Amino acid sequence: MRTDFTSWTATHQSRFEEVLRVVLPSPDIAPQRLHQAMRYAVLDGGKRVRPLLAFAAGELAGADVARVNIAAAAVELIHAYSLVHDDLPCMDDDVLRRGKPTCHVQYDEATALLVGDSLQTLAFHLLAEHSLCDEPKQQLEMIKLLATATGSRGMAGGQAIDLASVGRALSLPELESMHIHKTGALIRAAVLLGAQCGTVSSERLSMLDHFGKCVGLAFQVVDDVLDASSDTATLGKTAGKDADNDKPTYVTLLGIPAARDMARNLHAEALAALAEFGDEALRLRELADFIVLREF
Amino acid sequence: MRTDFTSWTATHQSRFEEVLRVVLPSPDIAPQRLHQAMRYAVLDGGKRVRPLLAFAAGELAGADVARVNIAAAAVELIHAYSLVHDDLPCMDDDVLRRGKPTCHVQYDEATALLVGDSLQTLAFHLLAEHSLCDEPKQQLEMIKLLATATGSRGMAGGQAIDLASVGRALSLPELESMHIHKTGALIRAAVLLGAQCGTVSSERLSMLDHFGKCVGLAFQVVDDVLDASSDTATLGKTAGKDADNDKPTYVTLLGIPAARDMARNLHAEALAALAEFGDEALRLRELADFIVLREF
Repeated sequence: MRTDFTSWTATHQSRFEEVLRVVLPSPDIAPQRLHQAMRYAVLDGGKRVRPLLAFAAGELAGADVARVNIAAAAVELIHAYSLVHDDLPCMDDDVLRRGKPTCHVQYDEATALLVGDSLQTLAFHLLAEHSLCDEPKQQLEMIKLLATATGSRGMAGGQAIDLASVGRALSLPELESMHIHKTGALIRAAVLLGAQCGTVSSERLSMLDHFGKCVGLAFQVVDDVLDASSDTATLGKTAGKDADNDKPTYVTLLGIPAARDMARNLHAEALAALAEFGDEALRLRELADFIVLREF
Repeated sequence: MRTDFTSWTATHQSRFEEVLRVVLPSPDIAPQRLHQAMRYAVLDGGKRVRPLLAFAAGELAGADVARVNIAAAAVELIHAYSLVHDDLPCMDDDVLRRGKPTCHVQYDEATALLVGDSLQTLAFHLLAEHSLCDEPKQQLEMIKLLATATGSRGMAGGQAIDLASVGRALSLPELESMHIHKTGALIRAAVLLGAQCGTVSSERLSMLDHFGKCVGLAFQVVDDVLDASSDTATLGKTAGKDADNDKPTYVTLLGIPAARDMARNLHAEALAALAEFGDEALRLRELADFIVLREF
């Protein structure tokens, strides 16, 4: 019998924490302080939503879990690097992340800069070092996919649009474009890389891509709602920051009720993208529920 | 008849500038400001020492120049990213680079942070996107090589050791270890990647590796001498900074005459590493002269 979603999630989360411990440089290897700070920024934190999406897509595609571990770790390291750099004083200037002091508060700014830089490098290192699929040529495509999701036309580009948007009225399509890049790109990459560790047709890959796009955007809408409606203790990061920073969000643009509706619609669209799949997409459906229907 | 070194260098430098213009995202593509800043940080500056080493090693190995272009561009983008981040206020806090305002002065700190991040990503993107050699499996090895040279056990690790060394007396072996990581790793990678775009035996690759190691370290020793003995206008960056920042250098540790001797010895060792090669290593020898014997 298949385990329930909570057990599946808990098992993968705890297993994956061990994967991260192994792929991160040991804190005893020089330069020790940098390696300790890299581990501080990555370990013991987060729900590991992107890795869980990669594992669910990998299971659907019959992928070897050892391969998905590497793809999921690469995505999570990119995510962690982006958080460390986003929290820096010259960006969001945040002091709290996942209930702990941010990396530059715990260490120092220069170290946090190098932590983010080195986590990004490590992500690509992992994808080049380990076998992810049977064809090295496809593996190169997977590296390219992560680079596209990460760089100036993906996540970092979304950050740049975000910077440019402070204090400025954005239209809904502009806000959507920002988040499709800033948050969505890496979530889509997680789904696609997980699936590409196994075997999946290009039609099904497109469906998974659309699923990832909807979930990624829904994730951000829910984040905006939670930021506006929760307190700092519940979030584990500073609440109400977006409004304080005069940043456009789905809530400031639509109000909380319409933002909630939008998240529900995206959730429905994500599930519709999986309509062709049978039971093998169960975990992806459950993850869509988990991501969109969290306490909001 | 073979062109002389000056023409060879000038031809490759101007050709390579065009390569960089093509691989960098167009300034008209969104996010425009980020893309403009990426181009500002990379184009129209520097002697392109690392690319020249890659081209020389590529010629020696009979590599297709279109392939070496990509490898050289990846290395140069990593180098440019490291300069942008090193110049940030939380690191060296420098205002002048290659005779121009540094990226965060010309734009702003947040943009400079994203510029460095995005240049790094673009380097790996290029190596995954284009064909560098006949075997995709070897191409994965080349990506891994650049990642090793770039990350926490390479260039970024050297930066971390550098941070930790401020105001502290380093021994000569400690200083050497710092620079082998901080400057040397990427110079070695340039030589090796250039050669691996063509065909070269593992014995010869080891010799080239040793050549790269000696040249990389010599490069830093010469830099230290120039920093202590030149003025800002000649350098195109702020002179005398290392001493002002209380950073250990070969000059503070050995004095200028002994540092010059060390550079000359490393130069001789670099040439000795090429002893097995004939005329096909001419450009590498000339580059060793160019790097070590510049006006110091």
